[in-house]
Amino acid sequence: MKRILAFGAGRVAKPCIQYLLQKEDYEVFLVDKVRENLDITLSGRERGHPVTEDAYENAGRLMDEYKPDVVLCLLPAAMNSRIARECIQRSIDMTAASYAKEEIRNLSEEAEAKGVTLLFEMGLDPGIDHMSASRTIKKIHDEKGEVISFWSVCGSLPEASSNNNPYGYKLSWAPSSVVDSSKREAKIIKDKKVIVMPDGETYLHPSLVEIKGLGWFEEYANGDSTPYIQAYDMPEVKDVYRGTLRYLGWSETVNALLRLGLYESSKIDLSNMTYSDLIRKLTDIDTPDAMEAAGAFLGLDSSSAVLLRLRWLGLFEDVPVPAACESTKDVIADLYLKKLTYMPHEKDIVIMQHRFTVNYPERGTREKIVSTMAVTGDISGETAISRTTGLPLAIGTDCLLSGKISQKGVVIPTSAEIFDPVLDELEKFGFKFEEYTE
Amino acid sequence: MKRILAFGAGRVAKPCIQYLLQKEDYEVFLVDKVRENLDITLSGRERGHPVTEDAYENAGRLMDEYKPDVVLCLLPAAMNSRIARECIQRSIDMTAASYAKEEIRNLSEEAEAKGVTLLFEMGLDPGIDHMSASRTIKKIHDEKGEVISFWSVCGSLPEASSNNNPYGYKLSWAPSSVVDSSKREAKIIKDKKVIVMPDGETYLHPSLVEIKGLGWFEEYANGDSTPYIQAYDMPEVKDVYRGTLRYLGWSETVNALLRLGLYESSKIDLSNMTYSDLIRKLTDIDTPDAMEAAGAFLGLDSSSAVLLRLRWLGLFEDVPVPAACESTKDVIADLYLKKLTYMPHEKDIVIMQHRFTVNYPERGTREKIVSTMAVTGDISGETAISRTTGLPLAIGTDCLLSGKISQKGVVIPTSAEIFDPVLDELEKFGFKFEEYTE
Repeated sequence: MKRILAFGAGRVAKPCIQYLLQKEDYEVFLVDKVRENLDITLSGRERGHPVTEDAYENAGRLMDEYKPDVVLCLLPAAMNSRIARECIQRSIDMTAASYAKEEIRNLSEEAEAKGVTLLFEMGLDPGIDHMSASRTIKKIHDEKGEVISFWSVCGSLPEASSNNNPYGYKLSWAPSSVVDSSKREAKIIKDKKVIVMPDGETYLHPSLVEIKGLGWFEEYANGDSTPYIQAYDMPEVKDVYRGTLRYLGWSETVNALLRLGLYESSKIDLSNMTYSDLIRKLTDIDTPDAMEAAGAFLGLDSSSAVLLRLRWLGLFEDVPVPAACESTKDVIADLYLKKLTYMPHEKDIVIMQHRFTVNYPERGTREKIVSTMAVTGDISGETAISRTTGLPLAIGTDCLLSGKISQKGVVIPTSAEIFDPVLDELEKFGFKFEEYTE
Repeated sequence: MKRILAFGAGRVAKPCIQYLLQKEDYEVFLVDKVRENLDITLSGRERGHPVTEDAYENAGRLMDEYKPDVVLCLLPAAMNSRIARECIQRSIDMTAASYAKEEIRNLSEEAEAKGVTLLFEMGLDPGIDHMSASRTIKKIHDEKGEVISFWSVCGSLPEASSNNNPYGYKLSWAPSSVVDSSKREAKIIKDKKVIVMPDGETYLHPSLVEIKGLGWFEEYANGDSTPYIQAYDMPEVKDVYRGTLRYLGWSETVNALLRLGLYESSKIDLSNMTYSDLIRKLTDIDTPDAMEAAGAFLGLDSSSAVLLRLRWLGLFEDVPVPAACESTKDVIADLYLKKLTYMPHEKDIVIMQHRFTVNYPERGTREKIVSTMAVTGDISGETAISRTTGLPLAIGTDCLLSGKISQKGVVIPTSAEIFDPVLDELEKFGFKFEEYTE
């Protein structure tokens, strides 16, 4: 019987932990401060043991106590490096869904020396994106093809039937993360040159893309596309684009909020201020109707969907800003938390699509490969986002425990020994990439 | 056995004619130039007789030949007055789904003198709107209430799962009608005063409305709200608003097309012109990228969903405008016909909602009544729009034939002798108004 010490019983945990508890050879010790989270996640299954403790504070002691074969970490990304160091110290393997950021990658040599595997980026994005893209790229290379352009987008959205608010978006993660991600720099590669879009500039360059069977979506570049040339082993590639999928209107709305200064984290005095006061202050236009002020500032007439969305959000109301808000970002995050919520009967959808333009010099042909996965989930049951994040992590952990993964040090799932078994297993859950060529 | 002479076997005809053929006491003679339309509409039913002729050209002769008890007219609205005159001349009742425009209303006295009923506005909008609103208003008056404000909207839209293009709209009627309706003047009544919005100005005043269970929609005033005070017998009313429901972004898009001059029916020379040439000409901005020209002209930056929609429509392409186009309106109608189409497996939805603010002086209370009907349909079977238009007409015709309607002359369905039996029958088909008070 192998022992898994799992840290964190948040939203994503259930599909992950339940998968592992279905295997008869694993015992799971699940640690979370909140007993209710543990009960929901374990739901009384055999071999699942709740441990009501602060996993982050007591990581080392818990490892000493439960002597696990692997530590599966579902804590917020910022907590990973300390957990990883505790694992290395005790020669325990570790798995996580989040990015292997620099402070993690810096531990690779040490981990390798100790024969420890730190398997990171085993969720959806990062995770399934790496595995599915790497598998296709390997196939292309095996067939002597060259990847000319690589384009990859992912979105976690309300499913069409639940896409019923003016934003075309509902929260599947913390509202502050949604706001923060909107300020991030984006980098893409075009014709082998890096194009940098600082500070939300990416929202000025959305385009429309059709996902067959699902309709038209907006996409915009997101994060840093440059590491993927090396990570996916495609030195020949000329264009790399990694982006986010949203329903139409997202970019113009984020762009308007950025222009209005509503995504700033700097502290400002919001006491005794209403939402409409705030808009008048930010626009420096003193008119009773805050929507007029915003329209004039943004250069939008009253037909504008952006203005209708901001009004719906509550930004033009003569209602006091909550006392806890210390920045404009807090104001928006608070409104998102109130407004961009799913109802229990609703559905979410995760869509991931890769497009490859491929040259086959020997055959003298060029083709476009389009590879798409779409997964829907139930808000009151298991959401698509929790399943697509939690299951690959569970399967990756299983692969590691059953000796299928030989790599040591910091590992992300871009090699066949990982992506083959994990993607094959994911297909059994309906997480399948449908591929067609053009 | 009563005889129905039905003119026109277009999209709306099937649910209407099929309803009447289910009754054993009616024989239907259906006239259309196109034999295939007749076969589809009658689908081999007993007592249904195809007549392959031009109904409009031969209306009088066909009446003489088939000696019907009623003429049911599904021809385009412009053809109604001639048909009505032929009916009056022969003392034959007539039913139709379209508006009783002035030239029809002018025939009322003559029809009455001959004991003829011309039952018009028996479709969805006009039709179900009259019946459902009148019924509620009668109930309010019966309970000694006063209608302070009346607000009524209707939309024929792609159902959420089929709402998959950037326009949020698909054609359920002729594209030229969609374009024409966008130029119409709108009149609403606010505080007993008429507010006129000429020439598409209504698109500068959209607002958002939540239809419970379906989500948020855009609404804008549409047509002339003034006749409804009298038609619905509510002289006490202060505000009257009749509007159209659309998905968010419709108004800003129509507004942009109007501003660009793309809804004009005046003839212009489009020979040897591409779409992007046309945009450069209309904006008077000479830049290779027509989207840039449109953006500069409209004052929209590149995050704009309007620009993404117009690009998707094809307006920025270096592709020749079709030779048959003689006006900018033709160009748009042609693109709509190509782009705003349903797929066979898709669904449409018809939504109608009335909101009444009511004063009960005797009780000293005020309440808001919200009354909503939503009907979905299958594009390859019977669409929601054809059922909600065709069935009330069929039921109204049945009521007329079975002697339930005593009124003579031009009649619209605002009296209980019509709306009670028709709405009761419609409920059996699931066309039910759900009512709640606030």
